[in-house]
Amino acid sequence: MQKRNIEVCLTPALISLYDLKNSIVVVIDIFRATSSICYGIENGANAIIPVATVEECKNYEKEGYLLAAERDGKVVEGFNFGNSPFAYTTEKVKNKTIVLTTTNGTHAINESKRTAYQIIIGSFLNLDAICDYLKSQDKDVLLLCAGWKNKFNLEDTIFAGAVVNQLKTENYILDDSSIAADDLYQQAKDNLEAYTAKTSHSERLKKLGIEEDIKFCLNVNITKSIPVLVNDKLIKM
Amino acid sequence: MQKRNIEVCLTPALISLYDLKNSIVVVIDIFRATSSICYGIENGANAIIPVATVEECKNYEKEGYLLAAERDGKVVEGFNFGNSPFAYTTEKVKNKTIVLTTTNGTHAINESKRTAYQIIIGSFLNLDAICDYLKSQDKDVLLLCAGWKNKFNLEDTIFAGAVVNQLKTENYILDDSSIAADDLYQQAKDNLEAYTAKTSHSERLKKLGIEEDIKFCLNVNITKSIPVLVNDKLIKM
Repeated sequence: MQKRNIEVCLTPALISLYDLKNSIVVVIDIFRATSSICYGIENGANAIIPVATVEECKNYEKEGYLLAAERDGKVVEGFNFGNSPFAYTTEKVKNKTIVLTTTNGTHAINESKRTAYQIIIGSFLNLDAICDYLKSQDKDVLLLCAGWKNKFNLEDTIFAGAVVNQLKTENYILDDSSIAADDLYQQAKDNLEAYTAKTSHSERLKKLGIEEDIKFCLNVNITKSIPVLVNDKLIKM
Repeated sequence: MQKRNIEVCLTPALISLYDLKNSIVVVIDIFRATSSICYGIENGANAIIPVATVEECKNYEKEGYLLAAERDGKVVEGFNFGNSPFAYTTEKVKNKTIVLTTTNGTHAINESKRTAYQIIIGSFLNLDAICDYLKSQDKDVLLLCAGWKNKFNLEDTIFAGAVVNQLKTENYILDDSSIAADDLYQQAKDNLEAYTAKTSHSERLKKLGIEEDIKFCLNVNITKSIPVLVNDKLIKM
C-alpha cells in the first residue's frame, strides 16, 4: 500500500478545509453520542438514524422508531431517551431503529456526509476494531472530533490520538493535529479517567449527575462492531 | 482581581466563536511573522502596518515605507523583504515604517481586530513581557494561533501553551484548548527545536533553506517590547 494521510479535524467548523473524497471519516463524540452509537449497534439495533434537529427527530414518531434527543447534555422533554449509553442495552434496542439528534455528534456526521468516501463511528468501546479496519483499507483517514458547539474539546482529541497512536506504525503521513493528538494521548493513556476529568465537558456532565456514563464511555475495546453510514442510516458494517 | 478566562483559538477560522470585547488577543505566528514583528519593534521600527493582500501592500509604495510581503514562506517578487527576522535588525528598520503582508499572521490580526478589546503580538522572543502584561490586566485572554491556511499548527499551539503555563498559576479559568496547549508545551519545553522539527511547517521551511530563521524564532526572552495594534498600526506599547 502506498503512503496514506492521517489528519485530525479538531472541530466540525473546520471540515470544509479538508478534501474527503478519498478519506474514511471517523466521527468522534465520545461523551457520549458515538460511544452510545457503538454500544447500540453492538447490541443489535437495526439502525441508528442521525438527524440534525429535534423537529426532524419528532417527524419519525409515526414510524414506530425509538426517538432519542439530547441538547446540552440533557434528554429533551417528551423523548424516549437521549445519549446515555445505558439506554442502548440489548433489551432496549435489539431489532429496533433509533432516530438520534445530539448537540455535537450528529452535527459532525452531517457536516462530512456530503463529500466523504465513507463515514464510520468511533469510540474507546470499539477502538481496536476501528484501527484494524482503517489499516486494512487503502484510504486516507480523517478523524473528525465533534468538539463542543464547534469548539475544540480534549476528550475527543484524546481518542483521535489513540487511533493515530495505532496507525502511525504503519505507512501513514501525520499532519500537525495528528501529532498533537497522539502526544496528548500519550499523557492521558495511563489514566483516561483522571485526564479527561480536567476537561470542561466532564465538568458539565458531572453537574448533570452522569459520571457513570463517562466512566462507561472510557471502557476500551468492549465492542467489536463498526457503525457505518449507509443511505443516511448508521448500520453494522 | 476576579477570575479571568484564558482561551486558545487554535486557528483564525474559529475566531467568530469567541466573544472578544473584554479580551486581550495575543496573535501568534511564531514561524515567522510575529517573531519578526516583535524583533522589528524592539529594534526601533516606528510602526509595522499589517495588511491582508499583496496589492494593498504595494499601494503604500509612494509613502516611502519599507514593503514586506511573504506568501508560502517566500518573499514575493519585487518586495524589499518578507518575514525573515534577520530583515528586522536595527540597521534596517530603526525609525522606519514597514508594511507587512504574510500568509497567516496578518490574516489572524485582521480576523480579530473588529471586536477585540486589544490586540498584541506574541512570540518566544517576548514571552515574559507578554505574560507579565497579561497578569497585570483585569481582562480575559484569547491566544490566537495563526496556524497554516486556517488549519491547526503545532508550533503556534506550543507557544500558546508557554503563555498558559505562566498564567495558570494566577486566577484564570482554562478552556480545553488551553489545557491541551499547556500539556503539549510541557512535552516540548526542554527541547523546543527538536519538538517543533516534527511539525509540517518546519519541514516546509527547511525546504526553503531557512532553518536559521526557525532557530532564531525559538530564542526565549531576547526582547522586551510588546507590539500593540493602534489605529491599524502595530507600535511599541
